[in-house]
Amino acid sequence: MEIEAKIVTNGTVTTPKGFTAGALACGIKDEGQLDLGILYSQVPCVAAGVFTTNKIKAAPVVLSEKSLGNGKAQAVVVNAGCANACTNTQGDKDAAGMALLAAAKLDLEADDIVVASTGVIGVNLPMDLVKRGISDVDLTREGGHDLSLAIMTTDSRPKEVAVEVGGIKIGGIAKGAGMIHPNMATMLSFITTDADVDPEFLSKVLKRAVDKTFNMISVDGDTSTNDMVIVLANGLAGKPNPKQFEAALEAVCTYLAKCIAGDGEGCTRLIEVKIETAKTPEEARIAARTVASSTLVKTAMHSGDPNWGRIIAAIGRSGADIVESKVELYLNDVCILKESLFPPHDEIEQITGDQVFIRVCLNLGNGQATAWGCDLSEEYVTINSEYTT
Amino acid sequence: MEIEAKIVTNGTVTTPKGFTAGALACGIKDEGQLDLGILYSQVPCVAAGVFTTNKIKAAPVVLSEKSLGNGKAQAVVVNAGCANACTNTQGDKDAAGMALLAAAKLDLEADDIVVASTGVIGVNLPMDLVKRGISDVDLTREGGHDLSLAIMTTDSRPKEVAVEVGGIKIGGIAKGAGMIHPNMATMLSFITTDADVDPEFLSKVLKRAVDKTFNMISVDGDTSTNDMVIVLANGLAGKPNPKQFEAALEAVCTYLAKCIAGDGEGCTRLIEVKIETAKTPEEARIAARTVASSTLVKTAMHSGDPNWGRIIAAIGRSGADIVESKVELYLNDVCILKESLFPPHDEIEQITGDQVFIRVCLNLGNGQATAWGCDLSEEYVTINSEYTT
Repeated sequence: MEIEAKIVTNGTVTTPKGFTAGALACGIKDEGQLDLGILYSQVPCVAAGVFTTNKIKAAPVVLSEKSLGNGKAQAVVVNAGCANACTNTQGDKDAAGMALLAAAKLDLEADDIVVASTGVIGVNLPMDLVKRGISDVDLTREGGHDLSLAIMTTDSRPKEVAVEVGGIKIGGIAKGAGMIHPNMATMLSFITTDADVDPEFLSKVLKRAVDKTFNMISVDGDTSTNDMVIVLANGLAGKPNPKQFEAALEAVCTYLAKCIAGDGEGCTRLIEVKIETAKTPEEARIAARTVASSTLVKTAMHSGDPNWGRIIAAIGRSGADIVESKVELYLNDVCILKESLFPPHDEIEQITGDQVFIRVCLNLGNGQATAWGCDLSEEYVTINSEYTT
Repeated sequence: MEIEAKIVTNGTVTTPKGFTAGALACGIKDEGQLDLGILYSQVPCVAAGVFTTNKIKAAPVVLSEKSLGNGKAQAVVVNAGCANACTNTQGDKDAAGMALLAAAKLDLEADDIVVASTGVIGVNLPMDLVKRGISDVDLTREGGHDLSLAIMTTDSRPKEVAVEVGGIKIGGIAKGAGMIHPNMATMLSFITTDADVDPEFLSKVLKRAVDKTFNMISVDGDTSTNDMVIVLANGLAGKPNPKQFEAALEAVCTYLAKCIAGDGEGCTRLIEVKIETAKTPEEARIAARTVASSTLVKTAMHSGDPNWGRIIAAIGRSGADIVESKVELYLNDVCILKESLFPPHDEIEQITGDQVFIRVCLNLGNGQATAWGCDLSEEYVTINSEYTT
């Protein structure tokens, strides 16, 4: 976390003023697990969203992208366990139905509601369960934590945070436990703030923050059918300093993005990849993403093998310019390669601990970027082999 | 195999007239395994090659790409166990040294020799072992099989084939046991023919064949530091019918490419993905490659889970145009999705057997392409976690 933004203890998506939330187990997931929830602002919000670029979009994505076109929203209704993707006209009806049910409950219009779903593709929503769930859910100021649980799928833990800066608060929750491809094809994040901002500004700073954070944990440009990041700003805490607000929003996104990377399916080790002195920022970005998503780097990091050749090979195929003799490579701040000199493999220390920091200086310019990933374990394969069966 | 090309029983790279080969265990790999070999034509050859587009190129790639610039070669010297990549000026000297040693043995010029290496990146070649090996290797008409063994790394079996068409023969061997990323960063293939062809034609048909075959098993555009496909044509069997020759060359490349895909590290099931009626051939190509390389598709195919939503999601993110309602999807020729209708997940048959055939009709044009991959297993992770350690 940079600048003055302070983390709020036990902060979550309902930490900013005027937001309530709640969740319950309506029966879409197994065994009484929370699977449906609502996030609500007591006053109308300026809102912005970033959505999947996958050409196959889930019904709730199509609906919410459209309803957010006016830059306004007041509530989010979300379910886990069923993605409502590849579900055709019935899927569209069901997503619209979720919006109508939530609107009726909250005395809003349907286009005030953002609808989101996550779960298996190609299965229709059990609307009878959803209807009862929306009707029964209780909204409280403490409900953000339950909501963070209700959006989980194979996530091992909830992902939530709130920060405070200059009298305004920003809170957020996220889900997503797959790293190589977002699990069950979905990464969701809902962010709230009591700052008073205009829609153009909110949309612009959200897009910039997502590009530096959530988009840097996505792999190979892989975007799913259901991905969305939504921010609701209700204005109750007044106007923020724009720069402070943007930095705080980016901090919230960074925190949640790292939570997702570190909770990757089967993950035992978070990988942070920083590329410095690339020719351009864009080249730094593609190089960082390519390394963080390389299967061979991820498997090496799983065993702790300091196999730096795989890192160099990944940058070489990334599209970023690289001059072999200029590359410097650091593993956990220990220099492994500089001026074409490197120690024998068996003299490089094995990687231990639950995080590894890969830093590569290309010495070709001023481009810089950071990406996050996780190791690839046998357990990942097991989880994803067995998912719908 | 299409047209008249017939597979030669026990055919290999020395099946065409005038080629000899040999291999031995010189000590680069462990335990007396074959790790160095030579392929030789008794007369000078027209030659062509396709090389990695990775910006980090191994020393032998740089050298061989340059020496093949004149469209001629007469021998290949190759080692496994060390990629001679990221090895700086010493690596360049060592690759040149391999060419000089082979040239001296065979009474040729150094630029008549193609040099190739495969193995660990960032390790220098043990040139004393290489020198003795090149000196000691015996070349025979039956030596192609030993050469196919000597280029193996974690490959579980050799990959070799020869075909005959219209009086000319084409033989080939290949290595490569990683599919997600070519294993140890290398896929090699050496192809020979006794056809009499000119260098421009040979180069053109090789490139076209590689694009349809070896490049359709490469994943995410991933190309390694050492990849190369070389063809040597010594002319001893006279001029071929050009169309027959091209089809036979493509058949050899297809056979070897499928061998590589089917021998992917930890692979239990070959995946063939055919995209039909895409808007353009290029869109069919990227869609087929994206599905064949999708981690989620690969893990589903590992357990035999007919998780077709993952296939649709992969096409959706591939960049190819897709209209959800027009998609038809077949698993092993059973229709799973058509006109937006699909059976419930639990009514779709599990996938069994060592091959699965995914066919998707996009119904948007005439583009068609096939890609090959393999399932992703826990064993893949284990192999790649432990490789250099």
